[in-house]
Amino acid sequence: MSAESASVGVFGATGYTGREALRLLRRHPHARLGFTTGSGASHLAHEAGLEQRADVFLLALPHGISATYAAKLRATQPEALIIDLSGDLRLPTPAAYEQWYGHAHPAPELLAQNVPYGLAELCRASLRGARLIANPGCYATSVLLPLVPLLRAGLVEAQDVLVDAKSGASGAGRTLRDDLLFCELHDDFWAYAPGRSHRHVGEMEAYVRASTGHDVTLTFCPHLLPVERGILSALYLRTSHTPEELATALREAYAGAPFVRVVTRPARLSDVQHTNDCLLSVHAAAPGRVVVFSALDNLVKGAAGQAIQNMNLALGWDETAGLLA
Amino acid sequence: MSAESASVGVFGATGYTGREALRLLRRHPHARLGFTTGSGASHLAHEAGLEQRADVFLLALPHGISATYAAKLRATQPEALIIDLSGDLRLPTPAAYEQWYGHAHPAPELLAQNVPYGLAELCRASLRGARLIANPGCYATSVLLPLVPLLRAGLVEAQDVLVDAKSGASGAGRTLRDDLLFCELHDDFWAYAPGRSHRHVGEMEAYVRASTGHDVTLTFCPHLLPVERGILSALYLRTSHTPEELATALREAYAGAPFVRVVTRPARLSDVQHTNDCLLSVHAAAPGRVVVFSALDNLVKGAAGQAIQNMNLALGWDETAGLLA
Amino acid sequence: MSAESASVGVFGATGYTGREALRLLRRHPHARLGFTTGSGASHLAHEAGLEQRADVFLLALPHGISATYAAKLRATQPEALIIDLSGDLRLPTPAAYEQWYGHAHPAPELLAQNVPYGLAELCRASLRGARLIANPGCYATSVLLPLVPLLRAGLVEAQDVLVDAKSGASGAGRTLRDDLLFCELHDDFWAYAPGRSHRHVGEMEAYVRASTGHDVTLTFCPHLLPVERGILSALYLRTSHTPEELATALREAYAGAPFVRVVTRPARLSDVQHTNDCLLSVHAAAPGRVVVFSALDNLVKGAAGQAIQNMNLALGWDETAGLLA
Amino acid sequence: MSAESASVGVFGATGYTGREALRLLRRHPHARLGFTTGSGASHLAHEAGLEQRADVFLLALPHGISATYAAKLRATQPEALIIDLSGDLRLPTPAAYEQWYGHAHPAPELLAQNVPYGLAELCRASLRGARLIANPGCYATSVLLPLVPLLRAGLVEAQDVLVDAKSGASGAGRTLRDDLLFCELHDDFWAYAPGRSHRHVGEMEAYVRASTGHDVTLTFCPHLLPVERGILSALYLRTSHTPEELATALREAYAGAPFVRVVTRPARLSDVQHTNDCLLSVHAAAPGRVVVFSALDNLVKGAAGQAIQNMNLALGWDETAGLLA
Repeated sequence: MSAESASVGVFGATGYTGREALRLLRRHPHARLGFTTGSGASHLAHEAGLEQRADVFLLALPHGISATYAAKLRATQPEALIIDLSGDLRLPTPAAYEQWYGHAHPAPELLAQNVPYGLAELCRASLRGARLIANPGCYATSVLLPLVPLLRAGLVEAQDVLVDAKSGASGAGRTLRDDLLFCELHDDFWAYAPGRSHRHVGEMEAYVRASTGHDVTLTFCPHLLPVERGILSALYLRTSHTPEELATALREAYAGAPFVRVVTRPARLSDVQHTNDCLLSVHAAAPGRVVVFSALDNLVKGAAGQAIQNMNLALGWDETAGLLA
Repeated sequence: MSAESASVGVFGATGYTGREALRLLRRHPHARLGFTTGSGASHLAHEAGLEQRADVFLLALPHGISATYAAKLRATQPEALIIDLSGDLRLPTPAAYEQWYGHAHPAPELLAQNVPYGLAELCRASLRGARLIANPGCYATSVLLPLVPLLRAGLVEAQDVLVDAKSGASGAGRTLRDDLLFCELHDDFWAYAPGRSHRHVGEMEAYVRASTGHDVTLTFCPHLLPVERGILSALYLRTSHTPEELATALREAYAGAPFVRVVTRPARLSDVQHTNDCLLSVHAAAPGRVVVFSALDNLVKGAAGQAIQNMNLALGWDETAGLLA
Repeated sequence: MSAESASVGVFGATGYTGREALRLLRRHPHARLGFTTGSGASHLAHEAGLEQRADVFLLALPHGISATYAAKLRATQPEALIIDLSGDLRLPTPAAYEQWYGHAHPAPELLAQNVPYGLAELCRASLRGARLIANPGCYATSVLLPLVPLLRAGLVEAQDVLVDAKSGASGAGRTLRDDLLFCELHDDFWAYAPGRSHRHVGEMEAYVRASTGHDVTLTFCPHLLPVERGILSALYLRTSHTPEELATALREAYAGAPFVRVVTRPARLSDVQHTNDCLLSVHAAAPGRVVVFSALDNLVKGAAGQAIQNMNLALGWDETAGLLA
Repeated sequence: MSAESASVGVFGATGYTGREALRLLRRHPHARLGFTTGSGASHLAHEAGLEQRADVFLLALPHGISATYAAKLRATQPEALIIDLSGDLRLPTPAAYEQWYGHAHPAPELLAQNVPYGLAELCRASLRGARLIANPGCYATSVLLPLVPLLRAGLVEAQDVLVDAKSGASGAGRTLRDDLLFCELHDDFWAYAPGRSHRHVGEMEAYVRASTGHDVTLTFCPHLLPVERGILSALYLRTSHTPEELATALREAYAGAPFVRVVTRPARLSDVQHTNDCLLSVHAAAPGRVVVFSALDNLVKGAAGQAIQNMNLALGWDETAGLLA
């Protein structure tokens, strides 16, 4: 199927991800905005959206809430495409979800439906015609895009994969938290969740296992940058190959991918801000170690842009529709 | 010796390090500013300083130039204390210098004099009464303060030491370089010198060897932060010990050190900006790996403050004189 | 004439304005990039461009140089459209130019040709079919768009017009100047050129005179903001009318203008960054005084975007071609 | 009286102003911190403080609450010095308070006691031995310090005084407000409260009237800067005198004032951040108009530093005790 046009309803349109989705939809050639629901974590603000009809629903809602909306929409509008931008549908089992999110899964029956993980470059086929898609996390996207092809090709070891990641403040959402105030973040820098406690560790390891068969145990340490948007991850990988060989393998893996590019100088935030691109670069780090830099915009390729990309593929449109700068 | 007061001449007082030295000297109880020399890399601006007399000379000059001034001052004012803030006197041999700086050492006879490396917390005794001190690099200070005691205590492995470091822009000096313009750095973030090419790798490995006997091969990857000042290094270390054991060892190692503290939540830039402190924190990273965060102000503890601290020790003053906020 | 497509040559494509022009041209439906010339103020880098043929030339060159290129291109390619983004062609006479720029005009014969001042919203007719256009200054655009219609309508006094303006750092260009380094601008704020010494005062007063007959003597004080892009001007105007009356008059004046909008809450930088919009808002300031806020992106509506808009009008294309977000 | 030392209790020590007060008190030679009370606007958090005894109380509490604490402390510890950093005691009458704050004054009996307005440079004598002081607002300090001496000397007109002011984000307090989040403020800039609606207009006009006899009607328009701290006010004043004459008058007015200096180039934020200084500069703006720039740190000279300065004067200590960088 390839509809000429589709109406899109956006749940949670006042957060940073939701706002970015609106911005992208405005210039989309085939999608038109149907309705939006308002602010924050309150159920009430979103209930009205369940009464609306649309061809596509983007759920930019907090985890724990999002899947309940997905379940209701599946029941009442089974033909619609639902893309969940929360973490609710990214893990393979309710048990895994409970381990990483600390509470029971809100709609375990959805997980049983084998929801595709919408990392389009790595699983494009599974998205064509899909009606329910789990949109990957921003950090997970930045790590998996370089890591999975290198593991699949057997070019790097699955042992001792170490990721030092840095994200702009919009990654924390539009949340009234003391540590997100201008005066706290500005001119400062710190790490949070150092000990494998960030929830994206769960979805990264699950997807690596599913897509490469490797049981990796990530060292993953995220930091908060005093910039608005962008993630730069440094992946330190063990390998007996040269950076050039790895770069070549990545270029081949993404030969047909419009949004992933391998560059020679270190990838940086300004390369990707306000775009759906993910830029990768590979460099010698030490004997037997390379460092791969992976840069993307957490609100675009890491969230709303990737959701549009997934919508494009699911509905049979051009993968880049509405996403070129 | 413990002079009541001393006059201090500052070479290179218009750079960021030199300006910080002036700021610190203004509130020093025993030191008084003698003279300063002006701007940049030009020899001419500094020649006049060689005609001046002082009890202490701080050389905040570019490497390759600095040691020639140190040599001249040693010859004409042998009683004076000279603290070289450049990299010229930090490496043990002319050959090592040439390897890391790409040119012959400007005053190899000085290296033969066994210049102490002024990391006061690790070699306080060698600084008392010294008349020539190599002031450590900013990154080197942030890495060696946590690493050396842990290696000495045999608590972490010397293999596969991996450091992902981030520095504010003043670390690059007051240099008219395109990539240091506000519009380039602001809201951006990137890595530079990933492949063990940063010169501080040389002094870090040399000092680890000298102080612990271990031949480490660092993975060291520095990044430029859109903040004015501060370094946060993340050291990923292999160990069979718990983070608490390592934190305890660091606390013991720095029990008498007024400027190094071990904290429980991740150390961050705002903890140390505008101070001579270095804050350390230890956290689980992955099975068999800890991450140690090390935060300092690159212009204070990483440069001018550490130089004052070294001056205090060399002249028999209180180590903290002029350095408490 | 309305060509299907046109080739565009960009002189000075490595400055901030030139780079922005390239970004906008990439997504233009009718224009295609012909050639670019390189960096900075050096004549040599641009000479090669004079050998190239194109339908449109954008001159993003330093003043004093730009008009000489315009003159040469006029001579060799009289059919081409030339848009000069420098200040060289904005003043009515060589004498006025010399007064504000401090040196003789580089191509006075061009001024005699009555070059239209490309403030499209105020003189759209004069741009249709034009072959030489002076692109207005960024501050001038932000001041003239609100001021001229209010003066024309007799709603504000021409006496004691006072403008306190603030610009992001890209307005100063990609210049290696000490005061544009990250460490100087970051977290700082200051005024420059307070005493009517900014060159845009000349073009603002000249255009007000030409378009309204009023001989205004502006109080104009520009400041440098620690942001990358955007100008916010506060115009303090004497009036006996209400803010609502003035807002209504501005809305009417710009009823057909796709890029100028009057809003009710104070216009701010984030309303306009990365767009060709100019947002205006009018507020009571004190008895007999209103304040008008005028916000635009100095690199888009204040430079490259306005140049594209002028190109669109001159070549008979849709005014918004390539300029909608 | 000049006590050797005094204990200081700080109400509201977790806000930005309270934290700055703690920082300054730590290095004060005569004051020692007695107790602090906690966070925010909740009465409960502060009640415990009323049970404590101290020689000095700094009230860094929200307006409407602060004066009730002042009244209680006056009743129970009449010998203590109370400095109210809120707006509660700055206006001369309950009616004026109600006009600007929109609710009845919480302790009108205090206003009847003729509380001195602690702008030390302008009313030093009234502070010596005082036991209750209203600490001026940050904007008010930045405006009154240049304006009052010029009005007193008859060098500028009291008509048409126009102030365009810009403040760093800490001026808004440590408040969980959407518009104070990093992602909202960063890289943005806007005006708020343009139409004489900012409460400091009230105290500025009241103090001008009381200290000069002039009934001024200010045009005052504050903006929020994407910096942490600092206020830069631009005062546009009508005068028939030269900028040099005005600068000379200001220098004379502040000849004995340790914290106010007149400089020649435009005063800027970095001149004053983290200090108790107020820097002034005077420049030609247009015929018959000068612009005066006034820069101070809103948390120091604009709040906590000025409170310490007032404490020093009230207790007979050196005015600069604990306040020199």
